[in-house]
Amino acid sequence: MINSSTTSRVLYAHTDKMGIVNNERFLEFFEMGRVELLRKIGYPYKEMENDMLGLPLIETYLKFVSPAYYDDIITINAYLKEKPTVRIKIEYELFVEERLICTGYTLHSFIKLNTFKPCRPPEKLLELIKRYENQLL
Amino acid sequence: MINSSTTSRVLYAHTDKMGIVNNERFLEFFEMGRVELLRKIGYPYKEMENDMLGLPLIETYLKFVSPAYYDDIITINAYLKEKPTVRIKIEYELFVEERLICTGYTLHSFIKLNTFKPCRPPEKLLELIKRYENQLL
Amino acid sequence: MINSSTTSRVLYAHTDKMGIVNNERFLEFFEMGRVELLRKIGYPYKEMENDMLGLPLIETYLKFVSPAYYDDIITINAYLKEKPTVRIKIEYELFVEERLICTGYTLHSFIKLNTFKPCRPPEKLLELIKRYENQLL
Amino acid sequence: MINSSTTSRVLYAHTDKMGIVNNERFLEFFEMGRVELLRKIGYPYKEMENDMLGLPLIETYLKFVSPAYYDDIITINAYLKEKPTVRIKIEYELFVEERLICTGYTLHSFIKLNTFKPCRPPEKLLELIKRYENQLL
Repeated sequence: MINSSTTSRVLYAHTDKMGIVNNERFLEFFEMGRVELLRKIGYPYKEMENDMLGLPLIETYLKFVSPAYYDDIITINAYLKEKPTVRIKIEYELFVEERLICTGYTLHSFIKLNTFKPCRPPEKLLELIKRYENQLL
Repeated sequence: MINSSTTSRVLYAHTDKMGIVNNERFLEFFEMGRVELLRKIGYPYKEMENDMLGLPLIETYLKFVSPAYYDDIITINAYLKEKPTVRIKIEYELFVEERLICTGYTLHSFIKLNTFKPCRPPEKLLELIKRYENQLL
Repeated sequence: MINSSTTSRVLYAHTDKMGIVNNERFLEFFEMGRVELLRKIGYPYKEMENDMLGLPLIETYLKFVSPAYYDDIITINAYLKEKPTVRIKIEYELFVEERLICTGYTLHSFIKLNTFKPCRPPEKLLELIKRYENQLL
Repeated sequence: MINSSTTSRVLYAHTDKMGIVNNERFLEFFEMGRVELLRKIGYPYKEMENDMLGLPLIETYLKFVSPAYYDDIITINAYLKEKPTVRIKIEYELFVEERLICTGYTLHSFIKLNTFKPCRPPEKLLELIKRYENQLL
């Protein structure tokens, strides 16, 4: 498993009239976690785009366990547990202190940005995750 | 099955630098579909809140089938296929013309807004969906 | 003056914990008004982009007069009052029924999308607004 | 003048199809700056709400000087330059490294959260900014 951790503070703009963070915002927290995971692996998404590769979202699942409130600091943990194939799955756990807020995953395909056609994962990425190999499914 | 259909036009603010509607926005399209479904059933969410009931999201799944682009008109179909229990599941299909964009569901629990405690679905809602009874699982 | 009118219903996702539409969302309502105004004039923004022209925002002002609430239908009026130069100014008034919610303007420059350099307003647009000429400053 | 500085990294979800941060997002960056300024002064907005006070936005102005791009780190400077009256004005400057992205201000009124009626600024806030008194207009 490869993991990263980042934090984000809840803004007023994130809340809704129920007084909690609106569900729509969680895909943004997932994105925050994902980009930091790729940066930690050593292949930031920006660099991937420079290499004319994209990772469009093809599937996502979110489970809301308990609410997050205004001004809370959300810890966003992101995990790569399985070796990427033509797809890559990232998993997420969001906490406020020790309290679990939300879990879920996103599934992405690798595409060439010039054609939007699916492609194999870049060698560079596979190389970078080799040292974690025995920790991945 | 009870179904409703509404439309929304893609704004520039919905797109991202890949030139397509950003995934984060789809939970908003799902909400648009859901509120119109409840309105069609005859129990708008606003009225539910006036009756001190809420429907927080506890789980959602989204599958992205093909991209939506700037200025597209997205047709948002929402479906109630199963009788609500302590939970209610709404399903969604989004189209641009005949092209399928996204499918998914949201799962909500019924809560009392004053205590945030789960509760049974309101009689009013169960009464309203009785006439569809043989069309629901 | 050239004017257009469109509507948008307030979603839960638009509200914040004060129970009103969060200020951040109003630039999206302004965009909705602006694209309908350009469509009414006969030169939709999508077509402008196809002609390799863009209208980035360079300045905006918003005045919040009274709150909008969940499920309200907001009427978005957009106005072109002055002949475009290298810049174009669009003005806005948002209502819920007869109640004024928000006023403001956006100021845009015309740019060539391939160079991002400022340019004169397209002849096509100037031609289209000629018939309103004596109604514009 | 009282000032604070915070940073935020541009997400994909912030960008639009022009490849730059969409204008709608800037009011969120302003909010980030504002809450850190109030925290630095010693009266976080959350505490103000606990004291049943609110600061609804009544007016805002934004000037877009140059674009911000995906993965940029935006530095958000917020300033209190004038003593609050029944209103408080916060000013903002956003930078990417040394490049100015956006300037603007927000004007807020003080209200009692139970009645939504305007009120004088809280003594606590006035007390806290006393030590900056000769630096404020």
